[in-house]
Amino acid sequence: MPVNLSAPDPSSLHPVAGVTLGVAQAGIRKANRKDLLIMSIDANAHVAAVFTQNRFCAAPVVVAREHLLTSGSAVRALVVNTGNANAGTGASGVSATRETCAALARLLECEPSQVLPFSTGVIMEPLPVERVIAGLPRCLENLRSDGWADAAEAIMTTDTLAKASSGRFKVGGCDVAVTGIAKGAGMIEPNMATMLGFIATDARVSPALVRQAVAYAADCSFNCISVDGDTSTNDSFVLIATGRVAMPEIVDAESREYHAFRDGVVEVATRLAQAIVRDGEGATKFITVNVESGRDEIECRKVAYAIAHSPLVKTAFFASDPNLGRILAAVGNAGIADLDVSRVDLYLDEVLVAKGGGRHAGYLEADGQRVMRQSEIIVRVVLARGSAAATVWTCDLSHDYVTINADYRS
Amino acid sequence: MPVNLSAPDPSSLHPVAGVTLGVAQAGIRKANRKDLLIMSIDANAHVAAVFTQNRFCAAPVVVAREHLLTSGSAVRALVVNTGNANAGTGASGVSATRETCAALARLLECEPSQVLPFSTGVIMEPLPVERVIAGLPRCLENLRSDGWADAAEAIMTTDTLAKASSGRFKVGGCDVAVTGIAKGAGMIEPNMATMLGFIATDARVSPALVRQAVAYAADCSFNCISVDGDTSTNDSFVLIATGRVAMPEIVDAESREYHAFRDGVVEVATRLAQAIVRDGEGATKFITVNVESGRDEIECRKVAYAIAHSPLVKTAFFASDPNLGRILAAVGNAGIADLDVSRVDLYLDEVLVAKGGGRHAGYLEADGQRVMRQSEIIVRVVLARGSAAATVWTCDLSHDYVTINADYRS
Repeated sequence: MPVNLSAPDPSSLHPVAGVTLGVAQAGIRKANRKDLLIMSIDANAHVAAVFTQNRFCAAPVVVAREHLLTSGSAVRALVVNTGNANAGTGASGVSATRETCAALARLLECEPSQVLPFSTGVIMEPLPVERVIAGLPRCLENLRSDGWADAAEAIMTTDTLAKASSGRFKVGGCDVAVTGIAKGAGMIEPNMATMLGFIATDARVSPALVRQAVAYAADCSFNCISVDGDTSTNDSFVLIATGRVAMPEIVDAESREYHAFRDGVVEVATRLAQAIVRDGEGATKFITVNVESGRDEIECRKVAYAIAHSPLVKTAFFASDPNLGRILAAVGNAGIADLDVSRVDLYLDEVLVAKGGGRHAGYLEADGQRVMRQSEIIVRVVLARGSAAATVWTCDLSHDYVTINADYRS
Repeated sequence: MPVNLSAPDPSSLHPVAGVTLGVAQAGIRKANRKDLLIMSIDANAHVAAVFTQNRFCAAPVVVAREHLLTSGSAVRALVVNTGNANAGTGASGVSATRETCAALARLLECEPSQVLPFSTGVIMEPLPVERVIAGLPRCLENLRSDGWADAAEAIMTTDTLAKASSGRFKVGGCDVAVTGIAKGAGMIEPNMATMLGFIATDARVSPALVRQAVAYAADCSFNCISVDGDTSTNDSFVLIATGRVAMPEIVDAESREYHAFRDGVVEVATRLAQAIVRDGEGATKFITVNVESGRDEIECRKVAYAIAHSPLVKTAFFASDPNLGRILAAVGNAGIADLDVSRVDLYLDEVLVAKGGGRHAGYLEADGQRVMRQSEIIVRVVLARGSAAATVWTCDLSHDYVTINADYRS
């Protein structure tokens, strides 16, 4: 059961002029399951993306990076399959991805390099490319501008709920739509964190600023979450700006218009990223880790991730057990060599648990227990050595995490 | 159930002349449980130790470090309590440890700085120092040179079996005994990895070489294991050389005698370290990760630990599921920026699974399945970029790990 998350209401997802979506049941791994998605994009749109840092990146990541270099931002379609990650598949995996892109390019009458491929699912099994290609015409027959909810469903793997988010934002006096979908439930970590995310907007933005915005939004959303500390081979986050709103093109990174646009993308990306954690494999708690008054953001992130990664901390949350010394131990493990632990304070929501590195004299276990029982918890660590801060969202480690990952392929 | 591990046979543990051990039930956390140990050491012994790298190190670690600086190697006693880690306890925790050392020093008629304190158990709860001190005379009444098996039992926390190991080694024509005990089952990680280990020998070795040997032995034993990637606040490993064997003192780090002595310590330390993994919380499999032909040992260790830390890899082992792409994904996550994954081979025992970064053409899932069902498995990763190697021992991630850590305090 995801934590305070419900399936997206299709009527809440604003269509984005210049983008249509079509899904099909291609039978890639299982029958009777939507497992193939095409997002078709207007000729004048600008597209940018960021990808996994995993050295074993999947064939579609290799090809998508290459295609973006060749086509610049002039991408005409995304093609996404589930059921098979096409990772650890060597040269034949790359060939299979190229065949898929070439087949779709023929159907759309564009260049293969204008197609970006994405795959998610089991690693190290050959992609059944003939089934993927056979499914493409069926996706194209279904292309609809209101296909976002179906698309969100088609890219699910171990997700228990589809993830989509949408908003309308004022950018320079114009009304722009920002709508996105994401998938991901395990293998969730920083560095373009184990997920697929696709966001489109009808705002008119220069290619350079689309690239800047996708990296910025990834950093404050998908790169701030952790389910299990594993970075996948296939992580990708794509931002599409179709420019279909009648507005001057945004070209200045310092302009109010750019910031308003970027804030809209960040808002949707953050909701999607948090939805991934809320639907984290086996999650029963949604935990926000705030680290404050560090020297710089990097060390604050290190501390936040040390907490978010600790299996002992995560099992304590699962058990609603205020065994909070485990959080202090995780802070001490963050790799900050000159940290003065005798200045560190720890809060659980508003409850001061540890003061100056030790148990706070006024701390009552009953107060810790009360907060630990909640489904949403804020951990706040005060380092008292600077003015930087960072936030990471994570979930607990439960029996269901083990069950899901022990059974995933069966 | 630990993996291929049985309780130590007391008759297999050689006494070490110059060391006696006594235990007591001090009621520190639970009644009717051996929870206090004193190791009393001859006046002429040399003692050295290495400690946790966790910045939130426990009060006994702070005090033990300080006492070693003051007393040099002339330590006369170790005092170890379980049930309470005395970590995250601030200044009052340090005071409690000092009181304990002072009380034992009075009883033994030595300096407080000649006593090294150790604690293990729950973090961030006040140490019931009066109960510890009340238990000291009872430990002293029980001091025996054949008390190793009892001592191993007294330092257990979530361990399901006591851990002790012993051997006799030829050093420069003399017969020396090396006997040690250890505890640890969770919070097991590199950097003086979440455990207590105490090894004594009757060899005659200079203080400088005892210090060198303890660091060397830690690096090839306790620093090569991982259960859950958490480094504890209390890790300590102590080497005692009583010098009671009639032999010339070993003073030359290049001598055959030093190497023979060191090899004996490494052998006992490695057996203890492996015993910790075999008794890892919830472990059902013992996994040896060998990484070969890397540029240097550091990168080989990084890759080995990336595999040993991955919850997805560990749950696949638990499920006996040859979902081996997860191992490739972990290799890609090891943070080696210039790794050419197209040269990486992966073996499971003798089965070649992936060749040149992709699934090996001749790999049959049935072969992977057969190895995954074993209780002892060797993962071998060939990086094909140098001649360095490293080994890490780890275990799987099971439902019982979650159960144990969700229930530890209850």
